Amino acid sequence: MFVFRFLRLVLRDVFSQSCLHQFLLEFVGTALFLSASPLTSGLVTSSPVCPLQVVLVFGLSVSMAALSVGGAVHLNPAVSLAMALTLRLRLWRAVLYMVGQLLGGVASALSFPSDSTACVQVSSGVRLHQAFTVEALITLQLVLVVMVTAEVPLPVGATPLLVGLTVSLGHLVAVGATGCGMNPARSFGPAAVTLNFKDHWVFWAGPILGACVAALLNDLLLRPRMFAGTVINYALNSRTNVNNWNLVL
Amino acid sequence: MFVFRFLRLVLRDVFSQSCLHQFLLEFVGTALFLSASPLTSGLVTSSPVCPLQVVLVFGLSVSMAALSVGGAVHLNPAVSLAMALTLRLRLWRAVLYMVGQLLGGVASALSFPSDSTACVQVSSGVRLHQAFTVEALITLQLVLVVMVTAEVPLPVGATPLLVGLTVSLGHLVAVGATGCGMNPARSFGPAAVTLNFKDHWVFWAGPILGACVAALLNDLLLRPRMFAGTVINYALNSRTNVNNWNLVL
Amino acid sequence: MFVFRFLRLVLRDVFSQSCLHQFLLEFVGTALFLSASPLTSGLVTSSPVCPLQVVLVFGLSVSMAALSVGGAVHLNPAVSLAMALTLRLRLWRAVLYMVGQLLGGVASALSFPSDSTACVQVSSGVRLHQAFTVEALITLQLVLVVMVTAEVPLPVGATPLLVGLTVSLGHLVAVGATGCGMNPARSFGPAAVTLNFKDHWVFWAGPILGACVAALLNDLLLRPRMFAGTVINYALNSRTNVNNWNLVL
Amino acid sequence: MFVFRFLRLVLRDVFSQSCLHQFLLEFVGTALFLSASPLTSGLVTSSPVCPLQVVLVFGLSVSMAALSVGGAVHLNPAVSLAMALTLRLRLWRAVLYMVGQLLGGVASALSFPSDSTACVQVSSGVRLHQAFTVEALITLQLVLVVMVTAEVPLPVGATPLLVGLTVSLGHLVAVGATGCGMNPARSFGPAAVTLNFKDHWVFWAGPILGACVAALLNDLLLRPRMFAGTVINYALNSRTNVNNWNLVL
Repeated sequence: MFVFRFLRLVLRDVFSQSCLHQFLLEFVGTALFLSASPLTSGLVTSSPVCPLQVVLVFGLSVSMAALSVGGAVHLNPAVSLAMALTLRLRLWRAVLYMVGQLLGGVASALSFPSDSTACVQVSSGVRLHQAFTVEALITLQLVLVVMVTAEVPLPVGATPLLVGLTVSLGHLVAVGATGCGMNPARSFGPAAVTLNFKDHWVFWAGPILGACVAALLNDLLLRPRMFAGTVINYALNSRTNVNNWNLVL
Repeated sequence: MFVFRFLRLVLRDVFSQSCLHQFLLEFVGTALFLSASPLTSGLVTSSPVCPLQVVLVFGLSVSMAALSVGGAVHLNPAVSLAMALTLRLRLWRAVLYMVGQLLGGVASALSFPSDSTACVQVSSGVRLHQAFTVEALITLQLVLVVMVTAEVPLPVGATPLLVGLTVSLGHLVAVGATGCGMNPARSFGPAAVTLNFKDHWVFWAGPILGACVAALLNDLLLRPRMFAGTVINYALNSRTNVNNWNLVL
Repeated sequence: MFVFRFLRLVLRDVFSQSCLHQFLLEFVGTALFLSASPLTSGLVTSSPVCPLQVVLVFGLSVSMAALSVGGAVHLNPAVSLAMALTLRLRLWRAVLYMVGQLLGGVASALSFPSDSTACVQVSSGVRLHQAFTVEALITLQLVLVVMVTAEVPLPVGATPLLVGLTVSLGHLVAVGATGCGMNPARSFGPAAVTLNFKDHWVFWAGPILGACVAALLNDLLLRPRMFAGTVINYALNSRTNVNNWNLVL
Repeated sequence: MFVFRFLRLVLRDVFSQSCLHQFLLEFVGTALFLSASPLTSGLVTSSPVCPLQVVLVFGLSVSMAALSVGGAVHLNPAVSLAMALTLRLRLWRAVLYMVGQLLGGVASALSFPSDSTACVQVSSGVRLHQAFTVEALITLQLVLVVMVTAEVPLPVGATPLLVGLTVSLGHLVAVGATGCGMNPARSFGPAAVTLNFKDHWVFWAGPILGACVAALLNDLLLRPRMFAGTVINYALNSRTNVNNWNLVL
C-alpha cells in the first residue's frame, strides 16, 4: 500500500516537466562538455598536445557547458550522488540525472571516431591504489567547491567559472597519473564505445569515495548543518511540497 | 505600396543615429580585435609562437575589444545572424553589422603586410567534413554563451570576459585542425587581401550552421521562449517603438 | 592576580567554539591546499613538470582550499602574524592558527611518501641573501593583497581568487630561485617529515619580514589607520565583547 | 597677476594631502609592480624563462600592485597623460604622477643589480617603425580599457584585473618584437640605471601616441562626451571645488 503510494509519488515527480527538463539539460550539458575531449585527442594531428592545453580545454569546456546550459546542472555522477547523500537532491532524481550524464558521455564519445587514446587510463608506473587516491582527492576538492557554490550566494555566472577552475586544478594534478577521470560519465563514454574497461573501477570508486567524503566534511565540519532537522524537514515536506527541493540546488 | 512603406521604415531605422553608431562600433571593434592577429603571425620572428600564446591572444583581444567598444557588440557575423534568426535583432541591422564586421576584418588585414600565413587554413591531414564539424561545434558553444550573456543579468564587465573565454576554448580545440576560424570576419579579412579563397566556404558554412543550431537549441530546449508571442510582439512593435529592440541586446 | 585573570580570559577565548572551529578550518584548509603539492612532484612520472604547471597548481589549490573552507582562513603563518601585529587578530588566536597551519602542512606531507624533492630549496647559484630578498618580496605583495581583501568590500568569492592570483605571481617570480616558499607551513611540512632543514631559516625569516613590512606599509601609507584609536579600542573591547574581533577578519 | 594667482592655486593643490598621497601611491605602486621584472630576468638562472611566464608575471604584477595600492592609480605615464589630455586629470597633477612613476621605475631598477638584459629593446629583425606601431597599438588598447574602467561602474576589484589582462595581452603580442615597453616608466628605469638609451624614444613616442589616439577615439566615437560642456565645467570648477576632480578618477 505504502509502496504503491511512494512509487506513484516518485513517478509523478520524475515525469514532471521540471524533472524531465533537468534530465535533458544534464544530457545536453554533458555531451557538450565532453565533445571537446575527442577533438583534443583525435583530430589535432599536426603537433603533440601539451598537458597545459588539455587542462585548459577541460576546465573551460565544463565552465562554458555549465554556463550555457544553466548554472544548476551537475554534469558529473559523483556530484549528483553527493547531493543525494546529503539530502540536497531526491534519490530518484539523482539516479535520473546520472543516467542522463552517462548517456551524454556515450553520445559525445560516439560523435567522433574515438580510439583507445580517448580513454582515461592509469599511466604506467602509477599503481592502482595511488591512482585511486588521486582520483578521490581531486573529486573531493571538486565536490567541496560545488557545495560552496550551492550554499554561498555568489554573483551570477561565478559558479560555472569556479567549477571550471577546480576541474582545471584536478587535471593539472592528475593528468599525468590517471588522465584525470574525476567524472565517471567522462570515463564511461569512451570505455563503453571501445569496450575497454581495463581498471575502469578506479574511475568510479575513486570519484564516488571522494565525493562522499567531501559531502560529509562539508556538512559536519566546514559548514555544519543540523542533520536531524534536515531529515525531519525532508520527511515532512516530501509529500506536501515536493518542488521546493529544486530551489535548494 | 506596402513595400515602399516598409523600405522607408527600414531606411529610417538604418540611418538613425543609434544604428550608425552601432555600425561604427562593429567596424572599430572588429578591426581592433583582429589587429592583434597579424602581429602574432607576422612580426614575432625571434621565436616560434607556441599554440597557447595564439589561444591567449585571441581570447584576450576579443575580450578587450568588446570591453572597450562596449558590451553589446557582436564582432562576429555568425553571432549577428543567430541574433537575427531568433528575432533578437532586425534583419537589416544584422546585415549592416555584418558589413561593418567584414570591413573591420579587411581593415585589420590591410594594416599589416599580411602573407598567406595569416589566413586560417585547414591543416593537412584534416579532411574537409571534419574541419566543417569542428568549426560548427566551436561556434555552437560560442553562440550558446553569447545567448546566455544576452539573457542572464550578469555583473558589469562579465560579458566580454565570458566571450573571451569561449573564444579561447574554441582556439584550444580547433587551432591545430583548422586554425580556428570561428568568425567569418576574421577568415575573410586575410583571404580578401591575399585573394586566397581555398576552402574558404568551410569558414562560412561551419560557423553559420553552428550559430543557427545554437540559437535553436537555446530557444527551444535550454531556455524555451514563446515563439508565437515573440513573433506577434515583433509584428506589433516594429512600427511603433522600433528602438526598444536595442534594449534586448 | 591580573595575570591569572588575563590567562583565564585567553583560555576562555581559545576554548570557545568559534576559535576551535577556526583552528580546525586552518588545519583542514592547509592540508587540503598542500595535498596538491606532493602530487605534482612525486607521482607524475611520465613527463617532466613544466614550471607553469607548478605555478597554476599552487595558485588554484590555495584558491579552491580557501573557497571551500571559507573565505576568512589565512592558510599561512606569515599572514596570521601580520594580522596579529596590526591588531586585526588577537595574538593567542594567531599562535593557535599557526599551529593549525603547521600541523596541516605536516599532515599533507605525511599523506604521500615525500622524498627530498618535495622540499623547497634555494637553487644552486642563488645566494642566501638573494633568496631571502625574493621570499620577503613575494610575501610582501601577498600580504598587501590579503590586507586589501580584508578591508575592501569585494564581491563574494573574489577573495580566494585574488589570493590565488598573488600566490601564482609569487610562484612565477620565485619558483626558479627558491622553489617559492612564501608560506612557512608549506616549507615546514616536507622539511619536518624528511628532517632536511638546510637553509630552512630563509623560508621563515623572509616571509615573516615581508609580511611585517607589508602590514606597516598598508596601515601607515596605503590605507592609513588611526593606530591610537585602534589600540584604545582594542584595550577597551578586549574584555567586554571579545567576539566582535572575529568580524574584522 | 593672474599668473601668480594661478601658480598659487596650482601649488596649493599640489601640496594638498590628497595629491601628495596620490604621488606616493604612484611611486610605491610602480616600484612594487616593476620589482617583479628584474626578478624574472636576473635571478632565475636554472632554466630559460618561457615567454608565457613573462606575460603572466607582468599581467599579474600590475594587477596586484594596482589592487594593493588602490584602484585609482595609473602606474603608467602614458595613461596619466591621456587622462590629462581628456581633462580627466589636472595637468600639474599628471606631471607629478609621472615623476612619481618614473622615480618608482628607477627605484625598482636600482633594487636589484640589473644588467642590460632587463632593458626593453627592439628585437633584431624588427624595424623601428614596426616597433613604434606595435608599441602604439598595445598602448592604445590598454588606454581604451583604462577609460572604460574609469567610466563604467564595475564591481569592486574588477579594474585591477582588467588592466592586468590588457597588460598581459600587450605582452603576448609585443614581447617578441619590442620586449613590450608599453609603459615609459618601465622602459626608463633600467635605461637610466644602465645608461643604455638605444632606441629609447620608441618606448616614449609609441605609448604616448597610442594613449592620445585611444583617448580621442574613446571620447569622440565610442563614448562621446560633450567637450564644450566639459571645458566650461572645468573652467568654472577649477577654483571653487578643486577636489571634486579626484572623484572622476
